[in-house]
Amino acid sequence: MEINGVFIEDTFAEAFPIWVSRVLITAATEKLAKIAATEATGFGCSVIMCPAEAGIEKYVPATETPDGRPGYIIEICHPKKSALEHQLLERLGQCVLTAPTTAVFDAMGEDATEHLKVGFKLKFFGDGYETKEKLNDKVMYSVPIMGGDFKIESKLGIKKGVAGGNFFIMADSNSSALVAAEAAIDAINGVEKTITPFPGGIVASGSKVGYTNPKYSFMAATTNQKMCPTLKDSVEDSEIPADVNGVYEIVIDGVDEEAVKEATKVGILAATKIEGVKKITAGNYGGKLGPHQIKLCELFE
Amino acid sequence: MEINGVFIEDTFAEAFPIWVSRVLITAATEKLAKIAATEATGFGCSVIMCPAEAGIEKYVPATETPDGRPGYIIEICHPKKSALEHQLLERLGQCVLTAPTTAVFDAMGEDATEHLKVGFKLKFFGDGYETKEKLNDKVMYSVPIMGGDFKIESKLGIKKGVAGGNFFIMADSNSSALVAAEAAIDAINGVEKTITPFPGGIVASGSKVGYTNPKYSFMAATTNQKMCPTLKDSVEDSEIPADVNGVYEIVIDGVDEEAVKEATKVGILAATKIEGVKKITAGNYGGKLGPHQIKLCELFE
Amino acid sequence: MEINGVFIEDTFAEAFPIWVSRVLITAATEKLAKIAATEATGFGCSVIMCPAEAGIEKYVPATETPDGRPGYIIEICHPKKSALEHQLLERLGQCVLTAPTTAVFDAMGEDATEHLKVGFKLKFFGDGYETKEKLNDKVMYSVPIMGGDFKIESKLGIKKGVAGGNFFIMADSNSSALVAAEAAIDAINGVEKTITPFPGGIVASGSKVGYTNPKYSFMAATTNQKMCPTLKDSVEDSEIPADVNGVYEIVIDGVDEEAVKEATKVGILAATKIEGVKKITAGNYGGKLGPHQIKLCELFE
Amino acid sequence: MEINGVFIEDTFAEAFPIWVSRVLITAATEKLAKIAATEATGFGCSVIMCPAEAGIEKYVPATETPDGRPGYIIEICHPKKSALEHQLLERLGQCVLTAPTTAVFDAMGEDATEHLKVGFKLKFFGDGYETKEKLNDKVMYSVPIMGGDFKIESKLGIKKGVAGGNFFIMADSNSSALVAAEAAIDAINGVEKTITPFPGGIVASGSKVGYTNPKYSFMAATTNQKMCPTLKDSVEDSEIPADVNGVYEIVIDGVDEEAVKEATKVGILAATKIEGVKKITAGNYGGKLGPHQIKLCELFE
Repeated sequence: MEINGVFIEDTFAEAFPIWVSRVLITAATEKLAKIAATEATGFGCSVIMCPAEAGIEKYVPATETPDGRPGYIIEICHPKKSALEHQLLERLGQCVLTAPTTAVFDAMGEDATEHLKVGFKLKFFGDGYETKEKLNDKVMYSVPIMGGDFKIESKLGIKKGVAGGNFFIMADSNSSALVAAEAAIDAINGVEKTITPFPGGIVASGSKVGYTNPKYSFMAATTNQKMCPTLKDSVEDSEIPADVNGVYEIVIDGVDEEAVKEATKVGILAATKIEGVKKITAGNYGGKLGPHQIKLCELFE
Repeated sequence: MEINGVFIEDTFAEAFPIWVSRVLITAATEKLAKIAATEATGFGCSVIMCPAEAGIEKYVPATETPDGRPGYIIEICHPKKSALEHQLLERLGQCVLTAPTTAVFDAMGEDATEHLKVGFKLKFFGDGYETKEKLNDKVMYSVPIMGGDFKIESKLGIKKGVAGGNFFIMADSNSSALVAAEAAIDAINGVEKTITPFPGGIVASGSKVGYTNPKYSFMAATTNQKMCPTLKDSVEDSEIPADVNGVYEIVIDGVDEEAVKEATKVGILAATKIEGVKKITAGNYGGKLGPHQIKLCELFE
Repeated sequence: MEINGVFIEDTFAEAFPIWVSRVLITAATEKLAKIAATEATGFGCSVIMCPAEAGIEKYVPATETPDGRPGYIIEICHPKKSALEHQLLERLGQCVLTAPTTAVFDAMGEDATEHLKVGFKLKFFGDGYETKEKLNDKVMYSVPIMGGDFKIESKLGIKKGVAGGNFFIMADSNSSALVAAEAAIDAINGVEKTITPFPGGIVASGSKVGYTNPKYSFMAATTNQKMCPTLKDSVEDSEIPADVNGVYEIVIDGVDEEAVKEATKVGILAATKIEGVKKITAGNYGGKLGPHQIKLCELFE
Repeated sequence: MEINGVFIEDTFAEAFPIWVSRVLITAATEKLAKIAATEATGFGCSVIMCPAEAGIEKYVPATETPDGRPGYIIEICHPKKSALEHQLLERLGQCVLTAPTTAVFDAMGEDATEHLKVGFKLKFFGDGYETKEKLNDKVMYSVPIMGGDFKIESKLGIKKGVAGGNFFIMADSNSSALVAAEAAIDAINGVEKTITPFPGGIVASGSKVGYTNPKYSFMAATTNQKMCPTLKDSVEDSEIPADVNGVYEIVIDGVDEEAVKEATKVGILAATKIEGVKKITAGNYGGKLGPHQIKLCELFE
């Protein structure tokens, strides 16, 4: 099908289950909340080589947070539940507790299927000087530190969410693909319960499982040469159309498949509005690996 | 001594050796370089619970970089050399190679005492499609990806640097200490070869080795209750002066002791310019643990 | 009354009618829209010496704009209708038409009592190459420029709104007042139909009508010495309490009194959450000049 | 000639004399200085319809400013000296004096040929409560306000500088031209004594003197249809090459011709590094109007 003159390939994105946490970080000012949220979600692109997949989901104004201060909701994701708990303890303990004026709240709410005692465990840093308190119906711990009292909700909700939602933007030039990817990310930033964990939300490198070159047989994954514009005239079976010179991928994680679908839809729509975009496609493994199949064309029916 | 009316305690910051890498990330635009540098240095406050200590050191304009594009120098640090190499491979491989239009250069230059083959190892991602090339006297690898060709210098220099340079800002209110800490960080950002790895450069929580509460004997480190303003009237031997209600610490890592000293000096000077700052002090272990002792008062002689 | 332990003076903010326009600027990306919106609303603090009062009201995601691209709503205000039209032609013609990929839409909607033919007049820049087109029910002009086609709605709605809504934050130190003012602005940024036209939304200088010093009789307005913390011990009738050392004012313009009241309320609430804030008050002329009286305490009943 | 494979037209940019002021704004933190500098230089693209041409030139770290605080140098320009003084009084009086913690210093230094008594005049706002003081060799006024004391140097230096330095970037797509323009601005931001007064430094609309359409004879300037990519197939004598679909202009003002030349040079170099850029040219009036002729090719000899 075509949207805004751009060809949408009749294919699907194949996505995987992942444990997702959704956490609200508040602070005295928006800027302070963003600094903590950014640090806590850094080095969090893909669990292939990062210790977690993480990102900022959205800003929450002071009028809508439990403590009446501005905040950011972040998501931290990991395939293994125990590793996710470890990541939460480390990222919240080192990048949020240490940041000026912050507090931490569960933001998974009723979506949660389980809870991790992250606040309960971090409170031991208080050495007995911490106190337990109620904020509305929330059980909080208040830990004295140099910058005042750090407050954190006792339990943080998690659930099985979705990782690896994706689509590819192919355009006449690298810059057209790049601006389209930026526009896609801007649009996706408005979709609740999703994050785009790569730098600025955009992925510049595509990989394939394994290798082609027998000398590189020690590599578990290598560049997908068929998707490299600079190789389109020199490799066999290149998937780069003749009029395409730039490709970027958007990867989406989220709390549930519906959210990832919505993000995929608004992201594609935004990308197609940029002049020079030629084709949108998606990555999959033939449906063999991931239980979630997000069919691009169905999103627009 | 007093500076701008602020009491500078006659004490010293005790700092430790750490392996430091110094890497330049360039991109098509300043914004793209910053996005990659921010992701690559996230979750990097302290090796106590983060996988590395990392931060952005400075911006380098296009006129001063090897490829004539804007860039940011980052530092990534770890006590163990092998762990540092691992961190470089992961952080550059996942957070920079994947980011649009980036290239990576050694920025340690002649300060290096050793080199890690980071580019050489990451090039295997190219599956044989990568090429080796020279840029001036630099050996580079060019790896085809969707967004063009990712370029990285073959070897990255490292050396034994300094971690844990520090000073504490004590002020009449939490906000005075906070604004003073922000001013200190702004000043330190102008000092080459140093980073301030905590969120926004500022540390809100101070810790002590071990515990006081016997029920918490499983904790290796806990809050330093003597430095907590909200406990100043309830704990014994509080180190919080009567007129102090806010404390923040600045932690500095750097390529060498001279750089960390300079950062400490300009940071303290900047902090003392903020109304309400009462006292500057520093953290140490009596000189027993860290070989670097940065005496605050000597900095101003 | 007291809120979060802060004394709220039983007084009122006196505000004035002003002609208000409310305009949506969209662009290919959020960043490009923000650049145009920022330039178009600069040099717009107070009509005492600026050519208009102007500010960014809020971000609108791509999913909620007429052209499916991200945008910012700005407000531009002037006491005289003809001057407001002049300002719109100049600011939109010079700071938005010239900016990459922008489009301009009316955002006053049904609140408008009159319309200015701003798009109709700016289209003459097209020298006959412009075209008239419909976007849903909107009449747009499309003007060819180097960066593509600049699109602007034919008519922009205006109405009599409210200028000069205000409150003052008094705190133990300059920094406490400053952080509280930042927190207030963060909260007000979430209130629709209002702007805070001063730099960063915060006013550091208070003025009185006329002069005290007879040598300065040529001045129409001078500093309000009674509200200067550094003069509190040297001027007569200082209004600075003994425990106050920092004062900032928030000034609010808006589409109607309800919006300005709501902004005043959430701003005060946010400010009172910052440690060290002692008192909130407001500025008025005894009710003689401005027809709008926003009573602080009534906001919280 | 060709640079990085991009055709540089053998033409020149024609520039004009303009009165230039160069002013340093410092504040407690970098962020506060930037807020004031941004507000003071807004609505300042072109004196055709803006009250001045203005922009931020560069950041100055705390270690290099007269008061040891971080700051930004701005330039404000106007063809008429009296109008420039008026603009300085209004922009510094309304957008900087009102902003938290700011101070203002002359940054023209020995380049100045004349001085305007801007600080001397603004001090009257102090109503006699202001004081005169020395900071090193500078004569300063200190005016008590709510946020402390606003400090401003008595006299600000001005000189005849250069306005309207320019070059045009033509590329295969709108996005390639846009990213190249962003790269050019990033590079120019590193050149001292120059500003790029348009939004984000980039000009999306080109104009010609007068009109073509006789019905529009009341217009002094209209779109330059020959430079509009969307008209390239429909207007006579289009100057858009067949392979070009996006054009942006960079306009540069500066303290002297040397600075504007240097900015032009580094900007062009940066633009040519972006894939898809086809041609660089410049705008002139045949040399009849502006005394400054910046020949593009000579810059690279």
